[in-house]
Amino acid sequence: MSLLVVGSLGLDDIETPFGKVRSVLGGSASYFSIAASIFTDVNVVAVVGDDFPSSHLELFESKGINIKGIQHTEGKTFRWQGRYGYDLGNPETLGTYLNVFEKFNPVIPQEYKKSDYVFLANIDPELQLNVLKQVDSPKLVACDTMNFWIENKKEALLEVLKNVDILMINDSEARELGQDSFMTKAARNILDLGPRILVVKRGEYGALQFSKEGIFWAPSYPLEEVLDPTGAGDSFAGGFMGFISRENEITNSNLKRSVVYGCVVASFTVEDFSVNRLSDLKEEELNTRHQAFMGLTNVD
Amino acid sequence: MSLLVVGSLGLDDIETPFGKVRSVLGGSASYFSIAASIFTDVNVVAVVGDDFPSSHLELFESKGINIKGIQHTEGKTFRWQGRYGYDLGNPETLGTYLNVFEKFNPVIPQEYKKSDYVFLANIDPELQLNVLKQVDSPKLVACDTMNFWIENKKEALLEVLKNVDILMINDSEARELGQDSFMTKAARNILDLGPRILVVKRGEYGALQFSKEGIFWAPSYPLEEVLDPTGAGDSFAGGFMGFISRENEITNSNLKRSVVYGCVVASFTVEDFSVNRLSDLKEEELNTRHQAFMGLTNVD
Repeated sequence: MSLLVVGSLGLDDIETPFGKVRSVLGGSASYFSIAASIFTDVNVVAVVGDDFPSSHLELFESKGINIKGIQHTEGKTFRWQGRYGYDLGNPETLGTYLNVFEKFNPVIPQEYKKSDYVFLANIDPELQLNVLKQVDSPKLVACDTMNFWIENKKEALLEVLKNVDILMINDSEARELGQDSFMTKAARNILDLGPRILVVKRGEYGALQFSKEGIFWAPSYPLEEVLDPTGAGDSFAGGFMGFISRENEITNSNLKRSVVYGCVVASFTVEDFSVNRLSDLKEEELNTRHQAFMGLTNVD
Repeated sequence: MSLLVVGSLGLDDIETPFGKVRSVLGGSASYFSIAASIFTDVNVVAVVGDDFPSSHLELFESKGINIKGIQHTEGKTFRWQGRYGYDLGNPETLGTYLNVFEKFNPVIPQEYKKSDYVFLANIDPELQLNVLKQVDSPKLVACDTMNFWIENKKEALLEVLKNVDILMINDSEARELGQDSFMTKAARNILDLGPRILVVKRGEYGALQFSKEGIFWAPSYPLEEVLDPTGAGDSFAGGFMGFISRENEITNSNLKRSVVYGCVVASFTVEDFSVNRLSDLKEEELNTRHQAFMGLTNVD
């Protein structure tokens, strides 16, 4: 099944206690699409400037990612500069340069409009609404958002939430949007806003999925090495949407399995900078780690 | 099977955003023994002053807890005063009064010496060693410790670790003792110090168990209401040791089940102040929540 993602493509300068990289491939749509491409075909809509290396586009194509929806605009590509401390938690943003991303207006190519699965990465909720108007009738729509939009574009965001099936956000975003410090209550409040499923991404603590069918918890495998947490959340979303789109049956059990695959895929992303680990991931490695994840909570 | 715990009994003044209590039953041995008494007989060794209400001793006895090892000393009982913020994380300590606990010298009554299961709660590692010299030949010994002992009584603590089977500590203690910010590496370093099992208590994120058999993760059930997190770790230990002691077969699978029961029991403790919720817990409630815990990670 085809999967559409609309998000950012960027060039990142990243510093962690374990290394430093400059001008590497970043942005939500990069992590998402490479992660999802492990499972299914992906259509990307994003914008890049004239400094965006063609090698990145070739990488996408080598993964079977359809790049016809990538707009090429005069100017520089979106750039983010960040630094992580030893806890590898929230990074310090040293610089954000929107560049061509500032005027991004997602146009969905005709051949993408029939995509059955749609992921609206963390962009302005007005653009997310704009995308929803352009797609035919997807089977499943998921979206991400962030504190900035919760605080500054609440109305548009609430409109988005009425029109998506799944919201995938992190712990603090869920508490802010759900206006309760108890996750269970925050989750209930969020489900009242529209989405029938809330997935809360909790980094090294895994992910929680709330729906009227109950609560599901996927653990995160304790890793030997984490070099760079950038892109973990978008890779999670890519693994999740890629898996469910490949299975193409939206059952409660498949939704749970999607959470597990999201965590599995994200666990690879953080083992190296940028998409390095993700882009050379072998199916056997994925299966082995999936087994390890499943074993982690098995009491027998 | 009989289970021995050596720890503190205290009177706590606690403030959380959800309430305020004064002079309530506290201390590691209280939470541990009431939690463990759900599963098995418990022998307690601790010390109280002449202000310790007899109603607390009656509560212990009503739970089948053997209180012959509780020393009654002239003076005041150990008292702790703490305040939690909205995140219900690390409390601010407003006052610690060791009182009779300052000169605590654990003496194991003759009838306790044959206890098959021993838990050394978080006390001076020299006292923990002292206890180990007095017991016959327990099948399983577990201990707790804290940053203060890691920093100030390292040598005695290392000696304890050579003589216990299980160390149960929290996240930051494990990283400090294991001298690595990556839990997997910290855990390996700790297992090299002696214990064959490390249990890392992670509050709302559950617990991790490391051993040479691998890693096991028990989730923590997302609760509707948390009033007071005090005693969660000691209740976890009580549930863990109570369960394995009742099963009386130290298999890899039972050790994992013990972690789950530890999390289940702790999840009740935090729903009310002091031991209020724990002491009126019904078996049916325990079983229902255990089912919910097991369902939390079930993908089917």
